[in-house]
Amino acid sequence: MGDVYRDPVPPFLRRVGVETGAMAPGDAPTGPVVLDEAIRSELADVGVELPAEPLPLALGVLISGSGTNLQALIDAIAAGSLDARVAVVISNKEAAYGLERARKAGIPSVHIDPAIGDYRAYNHAIREALENHGVELVVMAGYMRLLGTEVLRAFPGAVINLHPALLPAFPGASAIRDAFEYGVKVTGVTVHFADEEFDRGPILCQEAIRIEESDTLETLEEKIHAVEHRLLPEAVRLVAAARLRLEGRTVHISEE
Amino acid sequence: MGDVYRDPVPPFLRRVGVETGAMAPGDAPTGPVVLDEAIRSELADVGVELPAEPLPLALGVLISGSGTNLQALIDAIAAGSLDARVAVVISNKEAAYGLERARKAGIPSVHIDPAIGDYRAYNHAIREALENHGVELVVMAGYMRLLGTEVLRAFPGAVINLHPALLPAFPGASAIRDAFEYGVKVTGVTVHFADEEFDRGPILCQEAIRIEESDTLETLEEKIHAVEHRLLPEAVRLVAAARLRLEGRTVHISEE
Repeated sequence: MGDVYRDPVPPFLRRVGVETGAMAPGDAPTGPVVLDEAIRSELADVGVELPAEPLPLALGVLISGSGTNLQALIDAIAAGSLDARVAVVISNKEAAYGLERARKAGIPSVHIDPAIGDYRAYNHAIREALENHGVELVVMAGYMRLLGTEVLRAFPGAVINLHPALLPAFPGASAIRDAFEYGVKVTGVTVHFADEEFDRGPILCQEAIRIEESDTLETLEEKIHAVEHRLLPEAVRLVAAARLRLEGRTVHISEE
Repeated sequence: MGDVYRDPVPPFLRRVGVETGAMAPGDAPTGPVVLDEAIRSELADVGVELPAEPLPLALGVLISGSGTNLQALIDAIAAGSLDARVAVVISNKEAAYGLERARKAGIPSVHIDPAIGDYRAYNHAIREALENHGVELVVMAGYMRLLGTEVLRAFPGAVINLHPALLPAFPGASAIRDAFEYGVKVTGVTVHFADEEFDRGPILCQEAIRIEESDTLETLEEKIHAVEHRLLPEAVRLVAAARLRLEGRTVHISEE
């Protein structure tokens, strides 16, 4: 399923998101472009011409399941409403339909099995897959595992998580059900920066959803997912446009 | 300040909300009417004729401060949009401006000093003041103390609390500030049934409020208070119209 996970590639190629053997000298790089002179010069030595403008923000999307939020990102990019690109999709589940969505969209997809080793080895493999694809922003979109500190530290301030409740209310893996059973009349969706505490990092955006008398757990789930599919691209848009500034734990959003 | 707290009145008069000496035989009762035959007959014996229709729901409003939410209830009642009446206003603070608002509206107002005795004596005094004024629904509207179990048990399912956040997020006494400093993008207002755990009971209604980039703690407070002034009368309206049904900890609201 998907690309086979590979050994580390040379650092400069890793930084432009190209895996060993994936690019012949003279090809245009398909990864993100780090426009510092050292890299330009290294690339020029092997015959790679960098484009004048940087490529759109490279996303590494972590999933565990059907990947509807991944699809929302792919669709927003295709529609031209999100200036980013999905550089790689990584799933901890081999059967995740999101990997198939990635393949259909021509996006490298990687299954990394948590059983490849201990927790540290697993997280190391994720970090390398993200770096090998030149990822600039890591998006946890229905990824049902905690991300290890190695990954968080490799992408400081560049890991975001989608959560189906208005954090800090209803953290954890069954947020929609927990909110429904608590009997709240308002719940919602949160996109936040991931930090080393589960569901705790600074909040980029939130949107409220009313629970109506007619709602069941199933209709509430549908409403939540519809908002997720709009809010996640919006959050990535804010990152891509560099409109965010952190003060304390408040994320300030500048005007467009 | 306000009515002096009095010794218990005879039970049947207490149940129609009339204090000893406040009503001469033959007067129409001003309190809530419990339309069971035993009460009708007891009242007939002292020459009190009950109206055919029950009087509006009798509220006992507990405050600690300026009483703007009390005012919202008084205004909604005066405007005819809330079929209830404020039977008594009780404050733990003698200087609370809410007591003055009550007097201006011709509503009995009572200061009960927490220093009258221990916690038990204080709560007992609150219970008696509520009962002596024939209160049917206790409304904690900016009341900054925990209500004792004696009061909660005397008014089962009939004590509601207004909280300036979307519970279960940001319980406690500084909810608006806590939410603002946490950096949430959505907060709100909750009205819930009080139970013996602080800020935990079943939720009647909630309304979300966006925190915009331009908001300060002060503008957020204004927004919260504006929603409180609308949501609290709405919650009392639902109780008065008997439109609520509890299932588990979910409050179901029937159609009008």
